[in-house]
Amino acid sequence: MRADSLDVRRYLDTRRRLVERALAARFPPRPSALRRAIRYSLLGGGKRLRPILALAAGEVAGAPVRTVLPFACALELVHTYSLVHDDLPAMDDDDLRRGLPTSHKVFGEGVAILVGDALLTEAFELMAGARHVAPRNALAAVAEMARAAGEGGMVGGQALDLEAEGRAATLAAIRTIHRRKTGALFRAAVRVGALVANARPALLRRLTTYGEQLGLCFQIADDIADAAGAGDGRTDHVLGKATYPALLGMGRARTHAERARDAALAAVAPLGARATPLRAIATLVVAQLDAPVVLARTG
Amino acid sequence: MRADSLDVRRYLDTRRRLVERALAARFPPRPSALRRAIRYSLLGGGKRLRPILALAAGEVAGAPVRTVLPFACALELVHTYSLVHDDLPAMDDDDLRRGLPTSHKVFGEGVAILVGDALLTEAFELMAGARHVAPRNALAAVAEMARAAGEGGMVGGQALDLEAEGRAATLAAIRTIHRRKTGALFRAAVRVGALVANARPALLRRLTTYGEQLGLCFQIADDIADAAGAGDGRTDHVLGKATYPALLGMGRARTHAERARDAALAAVAPLGARATPLRAIATLVVAQLDAPVVLARTG
Repeated sequence: MRADSLDVRRYLDTRRRLVERALAARFPPRPSALRRAIRYSLLGGGKRLRPILALAAGEVAGAPVRTVLPFACALELVHTYSLVHDDLPAMDDDDLRRGLPTSHKVFGEGVAILVGDALLTEAFELMAGARHVAPRNALAAVAEMARAAGEGGMVGGQALDLEAEGRAATLAAIRTIHRRKTGALFRAAVRVGALVANARPALLRRLTTYGEQLGLCFQIADDIADAAGAGDGRTDHVLGKATYPALLGMGRARTHAERARDAALAAVAPLGARATPLRAIATLVVAQLDAPVVLARTG
Repeated sequence: MRADSLDVRRYLDTRRRLVERALAARFPPRPSALRRAIRYSLLGGGKRLRPILALAAGEVAGAPVRTVLPFACALELVHTYSLVHDDLPAMDDDDLRRGLPTSHKVFGEGVAILVGDALLTEAFELMAGARHVAPRNALAAVAEMARAAGEGGMVGGQALDLEAEGRAATLAAIRTIHRRKTGALFRAAVRVGALVANARPALLRRLTTYGEQLGLCFQIADDIADAAGAGDGRTDHVLGKATYPALLGMGRARTHAERARDAALAAVAPLGARATPLRAIATLVVAQLDAPVVLARTG
């Protein structure tokens, strides 16, 4: 377990750097406010967990890293776009992200809206221009990403979240919002990696379950870390935002996270050594609640 | 000429209805604020000129309407998303669009941002899910649309426009902004129609020139109609927005529009009867300045 844990940290670090190099190469510095703002939000840190999951799922399905990398980067572009737009005053109105002023605080709201628009669009350009992938598989990944990001996924989840603010929420309502806001992109991350590799249906189903359960586990863990960070989850109460710990208490929330982790682990249990990174990531998401290092809340 | 003019109006009307039926079918009513807001912005009128251009270009290249239709609809989704975001208070701050209150005025800024995000995303889902198209061609269309919409196209153009506000602009600066904000999607419209039809390079080049020149012609005509509508172009001056008539005067602006129209016509001159709709549309864009009916400023 300790050896595994060391390995996964090295694994995550190597993959994170790989993704960051690719992102930086895709957006070199240019003398425009928009490009500066894009680089500020995209290259300012983050765990790069979604792209790493895509790479790890691709590995399980037999795709080389260079094949999956453009799609992995596209996942990070979609994730970053959603953060920039969600932080806007008309949305969650956040001044800080990863310890730094949010995009609209630095560049103004207009530019921040355009940063999100550009990142979302570029995600699709990256996927459509990927080499080493059969067009049919690339197109399946485009469809997967769009479904996860759109009205039925992230955008719809954020709309529900806006509507729900200040209202008493049920556990069912929280699950729905989380599944669409966060879970959809985790699910898409592993599916995109698998689709690019042309994974067989049975493998795709296992990876899909893994992605869904990991997304849930991650979101609950994130809520717990938030609540612990604020001492008593006060920030979320003030915002009227419902969270797992607010609704269930810390202990039961953690049990829910552990159950989701176990379901994720069970889904990939038969996949052998190739799925070691996926197993290690799922284990780490809950383990980091006791020693928040690698997957600490940096995005 | 008169007979041509009657035909083109019927042609435009038939195609517009076809596109509107497809859009309405894609977004049926649902009990969510987001869906109501999407339908409000998407189904509230408009010329549907970009989708019609895609259908007309596809026709020239030999693609049936049903093949091009999802891509045509995707163009309208991208166009509508750009209008909704451009109208936001942090951008152009417009209260009215096509004579009705803008999305953020009716549904709030947060929902309006999400409407744009959802429409942009859905455009890619529509293209990726299109039937009757070879995956390679669909993927080329996705790439084309993303390039036109992204940082190098519409988003970048809007960013330049934001930066330029209140500054004295040169004709070169206006051309650049117009080419990216408006021209890029006109160009993409005909190219997407042609790419879906797997058009040969020579034909694609002709249609590309047509699209570029038509976009320029349309934008100048739009500026002229704006200026004429405001009596003296006052609105644009107040906003500090540079336009062709403001910089060149009405007469010379019109000459520029006519030259662009002629270049568009010349590009498709050798293409025979199949290109009649494209020719008629280019002719109409300038002709409507004298009798604004079909292509009147409704979007």
